[in-house]
Amino acid sequence: MRSVFWENNQLKMIDQRILPARFEIVSFTKHQQVAEAIKNMTVRGAPAIGAAAAFGLALAGYESASSSSRELVADLQAASLTLKSARPTAVNLAWAVDRVMGAVTVSSQERSADELRQLVLDEAQKIADEDVEINKRMAEHGATLINDGDTIIHHCNTGALATVDWGTALGVIRTAHKQGKKIHVLVDETRPRLQGARLTAWELEQYGISYEIISDNMSGHFLKSGKVQKCFVGSDRTTANGDVANKIGTYMLALAAFDNGVPFYPVVPTSTIDLSLASGDLIPIEERNPNEVLDIQFQGEPVTPKNAKARNPAFDVTPNRLVTAIVTENGIAYPPFEISLKKVVK
Amino acid sequence: MRSVFWENNQLKMIDQRILPARFEIVSFTKHQQVAEAIKNMTVRGAPAIGAAAAFGLALAGYESASSSSRELVADLQAASLTLKSARPTAVNLAWAVDRVMGAVTVSSQERSADELRQLVLDEAQKIADEDVEINKRMAEHGATLINDGDTIIHHCNTGALATVDWGTALGVIRTAHKQGKKIHVLVDETRPRLQGARLTAWELEQYGISYEIISDNMSGHFLKSGKVQKCFVGSDRTTANGDVANKIGTYMLALAAFDNGVPFYPVVPTSTIDLSLASGDLIPIEERNPNEVLDIQFQGEPVTPKNAKARNPAFDVTPNRLVTAIVTENGIAYPPFEISLKKVVK
Repeated sequence: MRSVFWENNQLKMIDQRILPARFEIVSFTKHQQVAEAIKNMTVRGAPAIGAAAAFGLALAGYESASSSSRELVADLQAASLTLKSARPTAVNLAWAVDRVMGAVTVSSQERSADELRQLVLDEAQKIADEDVEINKRMAEHGATLINDGDTIIHHCNTGALATVDWGTALGVIRTAHKQGKKIHVLVDETRPRLQGARLTAWELEQYGISYEIISDNMSGHFLKSGKVQKCFVGSDRTTANGDVANKIGTYMLALAAFDNGVPFYPVVPTSTIDLSLASGDLIPIEERNPNEVLDIQFQGEPVTPKNAKARNPAFDVTPNRLVTAIVTENGIAYPPFEISLKKVVK
Repeated sequence: MRSVFWENNQLKMIDQRILPARFEIVSFTKHQQVAEAIKNMTVRGAPAIGAAAAFGLALAGYESASSSSRELVADLQAASLTLKSARPTAVNLAWAVDRVMGAVTVSSQERSADELRQLVLDEAQKIADEDVEINKRMAEHGATLINDGDTIIHHCNTGALATVDWGTALGVIRTAHKQGKKIHVLVDETRPRLQGARLTAWELEQYGISYEIISDNMSGHFLKSGKVQKCFVGSDRTTANGDVANKIGTYMLALAAFDNGVPFYPVVPTSTIDLSLASGDLIPIEERNPNEVLDIQFQGEPVTPKNAKARNPAFDVTPNRLVTAIVTENGIAYPPFEISLKKVVK
């Protein structure tokens, strides 16, 4: 089952906020609901939000009462701004919306409004289908880096939930597992929203892959113990020099891997590679609601003092010097990334 | 108010498991209860558990019905083993128990059982009183490292709660604050037991020191931003070469500080310096119950899948190459620590 799919003229998505406690599918009929779902992380993961936004445009097409192509395109353009502004760091969101709008723009002259509506939906569906296919290709490349018996640290969730299906970093692990390699995953919980402890652990249970949850600050200890062979992570945006923006905590994990000579591999569809940015310093970092840090309970008790303040940057940037290689659907890019990334982005 | 104190022939301690939700004082009349309270972290923090164990021996003295000095010493010796085995990593626990037992042993020939009981209590009280005095001296030394306007990252809890009073790393921050220096503290929450988010935040509220809570994996991002000037942490055991065992996560924080040229200062009473160990690889690392990792709720929802497994090492070792200087009550030790630590341990 896909995490993001179109059915009965609706966009349907697995609600990622309530897993693993409950498994629920939410339906969407308005593009603004989709933007809200991206913001509040009903759907999350760079590839998944890209596909969701593309389907969001399809909804915007059906929302528009316009019978003129020109007016429909204007409505779609307004919707595309709403969708693109939902989250700033992941580049897929803008990439997917721009791809759909590009397809609309080149053919808006010669098509009726209804034809354009169908075209938007077709393009969104193509993005979703391609995402699955791309993930499987990435996974094949990435799995060559995994040996039988490896223990792997994995950050955040990069599985079927974070994509349309299969996954990026977790897709690599799934493919290696399918190839019969024995793998153990140390799942870092990924505070504040705990995508590792909630979603990755849940996915690994489904796939029958051995895992243990650790808190984020334990990775260094395990890497130092010599018992971890690799780290695999996703990426929300990778710049031309190989700097990797990803879920907060990735940079510290990369530092600990580097300090212990353990290879560190981001697994990134080329749609998340932003060659227009020279380096990671230029990536906008979203700061989310501090309640995500404050609103937890430990052993049934509230944790923080009543009026406590918190900070909540959602991403960080890992400098290219800490990155061993970058796995893409078009092959594995090795340093110097300025050269190798240009070759894999086609 | 002290976190560990003797009153009406009882050992009394602030229950650190339920703060900040509730403030409760727990009373102890048996040394085995004290060992249990150390294990279950009713009391925590290397200096605090040292004082608690010393008072635990005083309780053991009053528990013993023996009227012969020789038999009383045997009972105390049995109790000292129980207390010392409560937690393996912090060296204060063994240090405090051995100090009391040393005082008992040298004078057991010429004193009555009741005189020895009083001697044990006096020595425990002396350890508690000295701890406060030592913390204040450490804080004076450490505060010279803090400038007006500094933003400081602090790990775990090292305040009045972790000691008998005042604190180690947090004591330094308190003294600098008292000196009129404007300080902002980024309090890392310190998973899994969240001593930062629960206890350090609570203490800073009491002292009126500006703070924000961050999750552990955010430190790297803030250090990289150039907006953090120093890191201060405690230590449960520091070896002859300056390797520092401390609450899990310290190593990754030190890596991130080092990578960004931000000074990293452990604040350690000399009672936690273990010159008998050449390096940190020799320190036993306690692994606690995995439920401490698993049993949290996020926004009111359970987090981990039902049968999830977890790992829970309670400490890690930060290699001396990442340590800028070590603050003690006898002055600040700079590298090479093999030489400087011998000078401060008197």
